[in-house]
Amino acid sequence: MIEGKNVIGFEKLGDSDDAVVAVSPADGSTLAGSFSPATSIEIDLALRKASQAYLNYKFLSGSKRAAFLEAIGEEIMSLGDELVHRAMAESALPEGRIVGERGRTVNQLKLFASLIREGSWVEASIDQAIPDREPLPKSDIRKMLVPIGPVVVFTASNFPLAFSTAGGDTASALAAGNPVIVKAHESHLGTNELVAGAIARAAEKTGMPDGVFSTLIGSGYELGQKLVTHPGVKAVAFTGSLRGGKALYDLAAKREEPIPVFAEMGSINPVFLFPEKTARDAENMAATYAGSITLGVGQFCTNPGLLVGIKSEGLTQFEGSLIEKLRATPAGCMLNKGIADTFLKSSTDMLSEAGVSVLKEGNNTTANSINSVLVKVSAEEFLKNPKLHQEVFGPYCLIVECDHRDDMLAVANKLEGQLTATILAVEGELSDNRECLDAITEKVGRVIYNGAPTGVEVCHSMHHGGPFPATTDGRFTSVGTAAIKRFVRPVAFQDLPDSLLPEALKRGNPLGIWRTVDGEQGKA
Amino acid sequence: MIEGKNVIGFEKLGDSDDAVVAVSPADGSTLAGSFSPATSIEIDLALRKASQAYLNYKFLSGSKRAAFLEAIGEEIMSLGDELVHRAMAESALPEGRIVGERGRTVNQLKLFASLIREGSWVEASIDQAIPDREPLPKSDIRKMLVPIGPVVVFTASNFPLAFSTAGGDTASALAAGNPVIVKAHESHLGTNELVAGAIARAAEKTGMPDGVFSTLIGSGYELGQKLVTHPGVKAVAFTGSLRGGKALYDLAAKREEPIPVFAEMGSINPVFLFPEKTARDAENMAATYAGSITLGVGQFCTNPGLLVGIKSEGLTQFEGSLIEKLRATPAGCMLNKGIADTFLKSSTDMLSEAGVSVLKEGNNTTANSINSVLVKVSAEEFLKNPKLHQEVFGPYCLIVECDHRDDMLAVANKLEGQLTATILAVEGELSDNRECLDAITEKVGRVIYNGAPTGVEVCHSMHHGGPFPATTDGRFTSVGTAAIKRFVRPVAFQDLPDSLLPEALKRGNPLGIWRTVDGEQGKA
Repeated sequence: MIEGKNVIGFEKLGDSDDAVVAVSPADGSTLAGSFSPATSIEIDLALRKASQAYLNYKFLSGSKRAAFLEAIGEEIMSLGDELVHRAMAESALPEGRIVGERGRTVNQLKLFASLIREGSWVEASIDQAIPDREPLPKSDIRKMLVPIGPVVVFTASNFPLAFSTAGGDTASALAAGNPVIVKAHESHLGTNELVAGAIARAAEKTGMPDGVFSTLIGSGYELGQKLVTHPGVKAVAFTGSLRGGKALYDLAAKREEPIPVFAEMGSINPVFLFPEKTARDAENMAATYAGSITLGVGQFCTNPGLLVGIKSEGLTQFEGSLIEKLRATPAGCMLNKGIADTFLKSSTDMLSEAGVSVLKEGNNTTANSINSVLVKVSAEEFLKNPKLHQEVFGPYCLIVECDHRDDMLAVANKLEGQLTATILAVEGELSDNRECLDAITEKVGRVIYNGAPTGVEVCHSMHHGGPFPATTDGRFTSVGTAAIKRFVRPVAFQDLPDSLLPEALKRGNPLGIWRTVDGEQGKA
Repeated sequence: MIEGKNVIGFEKLGDSDDAVVAVSPADGSTLAGSFSPATSIEIDLALRKASQAYLNYKFLSGSKRAAFLEAIGEEIMSLGDELVHRAMAESALPEGRIVGERGRTVNQLKLFASLIREGSWVEASIDQAIPDREPLPKSDIRKMLVPIGPVVVFTASNFPLAFSTAGGDTASALAAGNPVIVKAHESHLGTNELVAGAIARAAEKTGMPDGVFSTLIGSGYELGQKLVTHPGVKAVAFTGSLRGGKALYDLAAKREEPIPVFAEMGSINPVFLFPEKTARDAENMAATYAGSITLGVGQFCTNPGLLVGIKSEGLTQFEGSLIEKLRATPAGCMLNKGIADTFLKSSTDMLSEAGVSVLKEGNNTTANSINSVLVKVSAEEFLKNPKLHQEVFGPYCLIVECDHRDDMLAVANKLEGQLTATILAVEGELSDNRECLDAITEKVGRVIYNGAPTGVEVCHSMHHGGPFPATTDGRFTSVGTAAIKRFVRPVAFQDLPDSLLPEALKRGNPLGIWRTVDGEQGKA
C-alpha cells in the first residue's frame, strides 16, 4: 500500500535511488515502505505546480475552498484503521491518542472551512468616497486580506496528524488561498503518505488545481534549505526545535526576497505555585501535574518543564505527592530514537549543573522507553544559570524553590519568551501579586489560571504563540482560526469599478460578511 | 531656541563634543543650532527609561493615551510659525506643503486617539467555557492585542513632520502602548528638536511616564546599529531607502532575540496606460502625471516612476503633452545634498542603459535644484534589464513602450513588489484585461484606478505597504489605523478571574467595544 513516493500535485514521483525507510520507535523494526527523497527536479516541479495552482486557487470562493478542506477530512476518515495503525507504529503513541488526534485534525479542517465559508475573516474595510471634500476629494478605498503565495510547512514530530501533513499549518494556509508544500516528517513517512493521498484525492474530487498540495521526502536540513531558499516559496511554517526553527528563519532572512517564517520552537511553560493555593490543594495539584508532565511521554510543546514555588510545608507536601505519582506512572516510548537519545543526554546533563538535586530519577537506560525526571534547584541558582532555563523535550520537570515572593517575580522577569505560563493561586493571592501576573504575561502567549498548560483548545480565541524564542514572531499564532493571518496580506483598491472588485468588497456586500465601513463595523 | 540636545524622557542631554550642524538645502548655509550626537550612555539611558516607562504606559487606558496623542497635536500647533519656518529651512519644501503636512500630522494623531478611545482595535475575542463538554471540559479563553515593548523609529527625509518625530510610526506605536525612541533625521535636526519638545511637554502635561518618548541624534548607520541591536528594543519602524531598510532588517534578524522590523523602502509605482483610455484622454492624463511626477520635487514614496503604455497615436500624444508640461514645470530644490547628488547620478546613469532614449532632459548641473527627467525604453529592453526596474528617487520617470498587451502583462509579471500600481483604462478595457489586473494586484499593496499614486489617504482602509522590496513585510502597513498592528501581539487568558482580566476582556464588556464571542461579533 505504501508506495514511498513524493506526492506532487496529482502525480506521485520518486526517481531517486537513495531510498530511506520508516522505523518503529517501539522496537526498532523497519516498517513497510521504501521512501524516495525528492530530487531537485521533483522539488522544482512541486514549486512550479504550486505557483501555477496559486493563480487559480487564490481566486476560488470561500465555499469552494471550504468544500476542499471538508473533503480532506472525509478522505482522512475513510483511511480508517490503516491510518491509525500506521501512525501508532511510527509514533509509538497509543490508539486512543491517535484516534483523538485524528478527530482534532478533522475538526480543525472543519473549523477553517466554516471560517472561510462565513467569510468575514478577510477583514474587509471600506472608506467611501467624498468627492466634494475640501481641499481635496476623498477617493473610495477598499481593503481586504488576500493570500500570499505558496507556503512550505515543516511538520511536527509530536502530532503526526494534527500538526503534520493535514494539520493546522496546512489547513490555515490552504484556507487562506495558498498552495502548500509539506516537507514529510522523517519520523512518520508512511502516515504522511497516507494523509497526502487523502489530500490529493480531496483536491481532485472538489476540482482544485493540480499543485495545490504536494509533499516532499528528504533529510531535514538539506531539503529544508532547498525549500526555504526557493524563489517560488512565499512563507514558511515550522513546528519543532529552536535550532531547527532558527536555522530556517536565518535562511529566509538571507534570501534575496526575505519571506516570513513562523516557527513555533518550544517552551518550558513555567508554572507558578502560590503558597496558599499550594497549602490548600497540594494533592490535587500534584495529581494534575504528574499527569500533565507525563502526558504523551512529555512530548507536548506546552509540557510544564518548570514549577516555581515558595519554600513551605505545602510545597514539600506537593513535591512528595508529585514524586510518588510520577513513580507510579509507567515509562513510555518516545517518538523516535533521536528524541529519546536527546532526552537521556539533556536530562542527565541537567543533573550535573550547580545546585541541582534529583527528586525522582528516570533510571533511563534502555533507549526510547523513558521514565520521567524530576529535579530541583534554588531560585538563586536558577537565576544565575541560563542552562537551567533550557527546554528538555520530554517528561522532565525542574522545581525552582524560592525563599519569598520577590524571588518568584525575579524568576518571572528572567525567563525568555514562552508559549504559556500557568498560575496556581487562590484569587486573593493573585490580586495581591498583580506585579507577578503582569511580569508573567509579558513573557508569554497564553496565561492559564488554576489549570495545566497541556491541552490547547482549537478555537477563535486561542493564542498559541509567544515572544522569541517560543516563536520567531510573537504577533502570530499557529493554533486557532487566527493562524490564517500568517499567510495573508492586505491589498487596497482605490476607485476600482464595482464589477471588478472582489466579492468581499463590492458595494452591495453580496457575501453578507462583517465589514468596516468608514470605521463602523456592520453588515450593511 | 534650538539647544541641540537629545530629548531623553523629560531630560535634555548632550554630553558629546562632536557637534553636528543643520544645513539649508536651498543655499548650503548653516542653520541655527549645534547638535550633540547621543553618547553610548545617553542611548542606554533612553532605552532604560523606555523599558521602565513601558511597565506603566502599557497599562494606561485608551482614553489616557488618547489624551496624550491629542496633546502632542496641540503642542505641535502651538509651536506656530517657528516650526513651519524651521521645517521649510531644513527641507526646502514650500510653506503650503509644510502647513498641510502639519495638519496631516495632527489629524493622524487625532485618528489614532479616536481609534484607541473607542477601543475595539484590540480585537478582543472570547470563547466561553463549556464545563460539561465531553470528553473534556472547555476552558474560558479570552484574547486581545497588547503592546510589544519599546519601538525605535527611523524617520523619513521627505515628510519632516508627517513621517518623522511625531509621524505615523510614532503615533501608531504610542497608541498601541509602546514607548518610542526616534532617531532624529540628520536632514531636519531642528524640526526634530522642536517636535520632540512638543511631545515631551504633552507627556508631562498628561501625566505620562518619564521615558515614554526620547529622540537621539547621531549618524545613520552607527546610531542605527546601536539602537537596533540594543536588547531593550522590541520593534523597529523605518521609512527610507532599500539599502538603509535592508541593513536594519539584517541587523534585527541577527540579534540573539530577533525583532520585527517594518521598513518601507521605496517603490517605482508603475502606471499602466491602456490604449483606449490613452486615446480618449491623453491630455488630461499628461496633466495629472506631470503634476504627480514633479509633486514635492518627485520626493514621494508613491511617486510614479514607470509608465507602461502600448505603442499608439494616443501614447505619442500623451508623451508629447507630458514632455511639454514637464518642461513648463520649474526646477525644485531637493531635500538635501545627498538626495540631489544621488538623483543626478542615478538619472544620468539610466541614460547610458541599452535602448534608453531621452524624452526630456533634466539639464541638471547645479546641485540641489533639480529638473525632471523623462526617458523611454522598449518593453523588450525593460524586461531584460533589472537596472531599469530600480527606483530613482526624485522627478524621474521611465516610459516603457509595449508592442501589444502581452508585453504589458509580461512587464507586470516581471516587476518586484511595489507600494502601488495604477491602471488608466476605460472600464471595458479593464474587464477585458482581467489577467493584467490580477498580475498587477499580486505585486502591490494598493491598486489605483484612473487616478495618480501620490496622495495617500490616512484612513481605516488604507494599505501603505506591499511585497518586498517595497517593504520588509507585506502583511503590515505604515499608513492608516492598521499601522498599529505592527506593534502589538495577542495574549490569551485562560480561566482568569474577571476581576483580574483587562477591561477589554471582562464579562460585562465595560468598555462597550466590538468583540468576538464564540465566533460571533457583537457588543454584548
